[in-house]
This record gives sequence, C-alpha cells and structure tokens, in this order.
Amino acid sequence: MALIVQKFGGTSLATPEHIKRVALRVVEERKKGNELVVIVSAMGATTDELIELSRKISQNPPARELDMLIATGEQISSALLSMAIHAKGEKAVSLTGPQVGILTDSFHTKARILKVNSKRILNELRKGNIVIVAGFQGTDYESNITTLGRGGSDTTAVAIAAALKADICEIFTDVDGVFTTDPRIVPEAKKLPSITYDEMLELASAGAKVLQSRSVEFAAKYNVKIHVRSSFHGKEGTIVMKEIESMESVLVRGVALEKNQAKISIDGVPDYPGVAAEIFEPLSKENINVDLIVQGAPDREGKSEITFTVDREETEKVIKIMAKVKEKLGAGKVGCDKGVAKVSIVGVGMRTHPGVAARMFKALSREKINIELISTSEILISCLVREEEGEKAVQALHKEFELEKMQ
Amino acid sequence: MALIVQKFGGTSLATPEHIKRVALRVVEERKKGNELVVIVSAMGATTDELIELSRKISQNPPARELDMLIATGEQISSALLSMAIHAKGEKAVSLTGPQVGILTDSFHTKARILKVNSKRILNELRKGNIVIVAGFQGTDYESNITTLGRGGSDTTAVAIAAALKADICEIFTDVDGVFTTDPRIVPEAKKLPSITYDEMLELASAGAKVLQSRSVEFAAKYNVKIHVRSSFHGKEGTIVMKEIESMESVLVRGVALEKNQAKISIDGVPDYPGVAAEIFEPLSKENINVDLIVQGAPDREGKSEITFTVDREETEKVIKIMAKVKEKLGAGKVGCDKGVAKVSIVGVGMRTHPGVAARMFKALSREKINIELISTSEILISCLVREEEGEKAVQALHKEFELEKMQ
Repeated sequence: MALIVQKFGGTSLATPEHIKRVALRVVEERKKGNELVVIVSAMGATTDELIELSRKISQNPPARELDMLIATGEQISSALLSMAIHAKGEKAVSLTGPQVGILTDSFHTKARILKVNSKRILNELRKGNIVIVAGFQGTDYESNITTLGRGGSDTTAVAIAAALKADICEIFTDVDGVFTTDPRIVPEAKKLPSITYDEMLELASAGAKVLQSRSVEFAAKYNVKIHVRSSFHGKEGTIVMKEIESMESVLVRGVALEKNQAKISIDGVPDYPGVAAEIFEPLSKENINVDLIVQGAPDREGKSEITFTVDREETEKVIKIMAKVKEKLGAGKVGCDKGVAKVSIVGVGMRTHPGVAARMFKALSREKINIELISTSEILISCLVREEEGEKAVQALHKEFELEKMQ
Repeated sequence: MALIVQKFGGTSLATPEHIKRVALRVVEERKKGNELVVIVSAMGATTDELIELSRKISQNPPARELDMLIATGEQISSALLSMAIHAKGEKAVSLTGPQVGILTDSFHTKARILKVNSKRILNELRKGNIVIVAGFQGTDYESNITTLGRGGSDTTAVAIAAALKADICEIFTDVDGVFTTDPRIVPEAKKLPSITYDEMLELASAGAKVLQSRSVEFAAKYNVKIHVRSSFHGKEGTIVMKEIESMESVLVRGVALEKNQAKISIDGVPDYPGVAAEIFEPLSKENINVDLIVQGAPDREGKSEITFTVDREETEKVIKIMAKVKEKLGAGKVGCDKGVAKVSIVGVGMRTHPGVAARMFKALSREKINIELISTSEILISCLVREEEGEKAVQALHKEFELEKMQ
C-alpha cells in the first residue's frame, strides 16, 4: 500500500463531466489499495472570472480581500470532486487550506508556505477517506486566508507530499510530461523519462511552464519525487527527482525558448562599489524580475555599460525607473530593445563535460544567428537572440545535441 | 457612538452595482461615527446555482460536502463588499463564519449556532475596520464548515448582535417592513411600526416569510432589537422587540396565509397511550414538519381519527410513511387532501381579550368560508380552509379586526 498525492489542474476539472472523469481515475487508484490525497485547482477559468468580478467593484482591491475571493474557486472544486467520488461509492472528504493547516506568511496573493500540519489529513486517511485538498491556499498566523500565486496548487501538492512523506506526488496536467523542447517548435522532441530537480528548475527559469518553480524548489528541499503526467491517459510521464542513474552521460537534457523578453541597457555608468545595487534595487522593490545581467568592462573614464533583460510587459515601468536611476547616477543614455528572445540549454552533464558552450555557439553561428548576450550557470547556458530567430535557434540546438535520440 | 449590526440579503447584493450601493449605505452609516458589523448573504441566485452545479455531479451529495460548496457564496459576497467599501475610502475586512468563530452543531445544511466568539470581530473593530461577515455559515467542533439553512444569514446577524451586545440589528430586505398582511392580498395592509418577538414568531410559523424563525427565537432569547427595513430607501421599517408600549390595546396585529398545505387523516386509530408518538415519530425522523394536529373523540370501539397538516411537497413521502404506520397500528384508511390553505391571526392582545376566536369564526362564516380544522395558541388562531378561499378569508379578517387603521 502506497501513500500517493495527486494534483489535478483547472483544465482537468473544467466541467462537471471532467470532474467525474477525475473521480473515476482517483477511485481506480484507490481500488489498488493505495491511500490518496488529491489536491485540486479551481475549475477551468474560475480564478480569472473571480478576478474579473472583483474588477467590476474595484480596480485596485486589497490583496487580502482578493485572496478571500479567489480562494473560493478551489473550495468549490474540492467539494465537487468529493461529491463525485462519493457518487462512485468511495469515501472522501474535502478540506480547505486553512482546514488542513497550511500555514503561510502574510504576503497575500503570493504567500509562501511555512508549515503544513499533517494531523487532520492523517486523521481522515485513518478513517478510510480519500482526502481532497483545495490547492493554492493557506492561512497566515492571524487566520487570514492567503493564496500562493499562479500555479500554487503544485506547491500545495508537493508541500503536502513532503509533510506526509508520501511515496510520490503525481502532477496531472494537459501535457504528457516534460519534453526535450516544445514539440510545437521541434516535432521530434522527446518526452523525458526523468529529469533532476536542478534541471527542472533551470528549464522553468528558461521558459518551460510545466511546473511552478517554487514547487520544484520545495520538492528538492524535501526530496519529494514528482511524476508529471497526462490527465487524459494512463501512460507514464516524467519523473522529477534528485538523481538519475548514469545521468551525467546525458550532456544536454532540454532546450527552452522564452519569448517576450526585453533588453534594457544603460551606458556611462560610473564604476564604484554598490552601483549595481542602485540600479537593481528600485526594480526589485517594484517586484520586477530581472533575468540576464551583463556588465561590460569600464572604459577609459571608468564608466561602463550595464545590460539586462526583463519580461517585455514590464518594459514601460522599467524605462521610467531607469530614467530616475540615470539622473541619480549621472549615467548616459538608457536603451531598450523589445525584439529579443532567450534560448537556453540545460543539463547536469555540463558540470563534468567542458566544451558544451562552444558547441552551442558554433551551432548558432552555423545558422547565422547572432548572440546578443550570454549567461551561464553550472548546468545552463542562455543566449539572447533576435526574437524572430528564436525557433530556428531551438531547432539547431535540439539537433546539435541529438535530443531526438533521448531515451 | 453606536455599535450596529447590519444584514443584507442576496437580492440587495445581486450584482456588482448592487454591492456598490450597499457599500455606499454602509459608509454613510460609518460616517455618522458608528461601529459597524455587516452580515451578507450570497449574491442573488448564487446558492441555487451552486446547488444546481452539485446536481450535475451527484443527485444525492453528502451534506458535509454540500456545505463546503455553498458556503463559498457568502465568502465571495463578503470579499466583494469589503473591496467596495475600500474603494470608497473606508477600512474594511471580510471574515468567514469559521474565521469569526461561529461554532455550530454538526447537522450539515441546517446547523444551529452554539456559540459566537466575539474576539476577532472586536479586534477588527478596534483597528477601525468595518467588519464584513459571511452569513449563513459556521464551523463545528471538528472544523468542518456548516451552513444554517435557508435564511440563515438572519440568524448569523442576530447571533453576532447578541454576542457583541450591539445596539441594534438591522435586517435589510426587499420589503419595507412587516405588514399587517400581504399587501398583494389586501392593498390596505399597513406597515407595522413594531411587533413583539412572540407575534413575529407566530406570524413566521403562520406563513409570513420576512425573517427566519430561528433568528427571532435567538433575538427573543438574548433580547436583541431587530429593525426590519428596506434596502432600497432610508425610511423606517418595523422594530421587532420584547414589549411594545400599550401593546395589549391591539387585539390582532397581523393576518397570515399559508398556501401549499396538505391535510392528511388516518381513521380507526386505536386509542392507547403513545399511539400519537407512533404516528408522528416516523415523520420527525424523516425531518417532515407537521403543523396542525387534531385528534377526534374516540368512537364506541375506542377508535379515533387523527388529522394533521404538512407542506404539500411532502405529501407523497408522508403517504408512504402513513401506509406503514397504518399496518402497524391496524388503523383504518389514510386520507389526503391537497387543496387546503391555512389562515391565521396573531396578536399578543388575545391573551387578555376573550372572544377573538369567535369574531374570527363569525367573520369567516359571513363569507361562507368553511373551516376544516382549527388550532390555537395563546396569541394565534389558525384555521384550515379551502385553498381557493384563502385570500378571501384574509381580506375578511383584515377588515374584521380593522387592521387598515393600524398606526
């Protein structure tokens, strides 16, 4: 008998018919003799609809009240799934995040889980119940309802799996697993049988949208084995885990493309300690995520150019902030290029195999793709290219590293 | 400075526009310097829609899961009203029943309030917040979400007013107050400036649907003054209170009509102690509410006829149960008449003025209305009549007791 945590996303629960299908799947697993805790997202577009409703009341509602509002979406789907399981003759009980005791900090709409109380869930399992948990939500120290941000139900699932020491955390989704790259760009892309936490994290930061990054960090921290698989059929998906046997024999496990990037540059930046903080602190205060950062060597006057990338939709905000920073630093002009994309390769094998970067650059140059910015980590190399060349770059790299042969 | 509890029903909160109007009204009251706790029902038809949704999953969902589902309706409206108040520049915070600490028993979908914890509300008031509470819901000892049955938000409001020792509990509704009778039947019907708890309770049991009976019982028990008033304008409504000055000078305060009644009779019932229990216990076990009960005098063989009324929609269930009871008791045949209505007069003045019943019967007989069954309490007289004569009976009684002259 295994203890299995399953998570179903909104598209798998979009209608009563969908919910009944999920119930069938849960009940089948139950009949194998396994204990089950099932985490659910809100049905289909419910969260968006609730936000839309709030907009009709206020353009800028308090985050606490927004959480109070949108947390109802998961509560509804958890109750309905429990009913659907009862209708199939199995015992089930639905629980909200606060009922479980998912304690979070108080950063409404993007709270982080601090602690999961496993008592109530264990009690219900002992009574023979399938436990349905409303994902995406928790409660802070003052019993206010909090939510975990988009994709937060993945984190709920992993956190609960960690607290219960579950045998596996199955994340059901609308794709078959994690692929070597986006199959819409490279039809030969292969589903990966397994991937390490680190690779998954780097792929997520590089633009792959399969799992919420925080859920992978959580899984890595508590060593929770995740199985990303399709909710439409029973085939195996991709296991996300700590180590993969003979994993270093694979040089590159995936290629990712992130469009909608903007490159911002500011030149004539005086070179003194702390100048970088003066540029990036105002951005972080506004919750703007800065991705690649490159600082050029200082010129004869000791001034240098700093270039970085942000999500394209943040561009206007960033330009405004940079105008102020420029004044303050007495820097030169601020440039902006909205036509870039980021292409990345990820693989733990890079750690032990030098020369991967050189092969990447060569493959891109063969295709006459110009690299505008480079950034590397231990297991990732990212290059900024023209957006219109992004897909060609992905195809070239997928071929260069023979990912179509991945087993 | 007064502490005021206000309750707004679903029709007053049906759309975002409605919610903004309620917010305006709340903020106006706040600006007079009063402390406010506002209890809300679900928006418009939300509860029915959620029940409809559950029916698509299961025809017979577990009551616990149904509560989990429908409690979201009030959570949504509480969050939205809080947002609307914020948008008007006042501080507000929404709380669910469990967050307040409204402790109930575990009879899901019709739970009763056991205790209200006033701590959280008082804390929020102290911080200068208008406190918005999701009505209709609570939590049992095991932290399961419970609901209080239709109209339960009234009870939430009164219970909170009692716990906080509020100066008044204002129930905003779509009528102007409590009337001498239904103005659709008698256009001359008058709005009552005040009414006692007892009269209000009897009127509710007699078919008037202004307040949930349980809320009035609660108000009577804790002496909470209720103001039933319109949400559409600022005019005074009806005060429901313990005693009304010179109240016994008014003989009859209201006339009520309840249609959709069915009369069930079972004859040849042997006459021994406990036989009534054998008839009515199986009904109460099925949660069927029996209203009027009349037992005839036993015949020569010591057998009598027992007649009672139930809601018409329960008829089939009751007939089935009575068929079994008949077998068990060796009684005669079970009769059923679905064409009856109940007309009642209510007034605390009856206590001290004899002859009210006689005047009622005479007024009905003048209109050639046959009385099929009579039941009386200290301050109420109910007569069962043919359904098609119900409205004529109400008109005759309203006139007989000169209720159009009520001040």
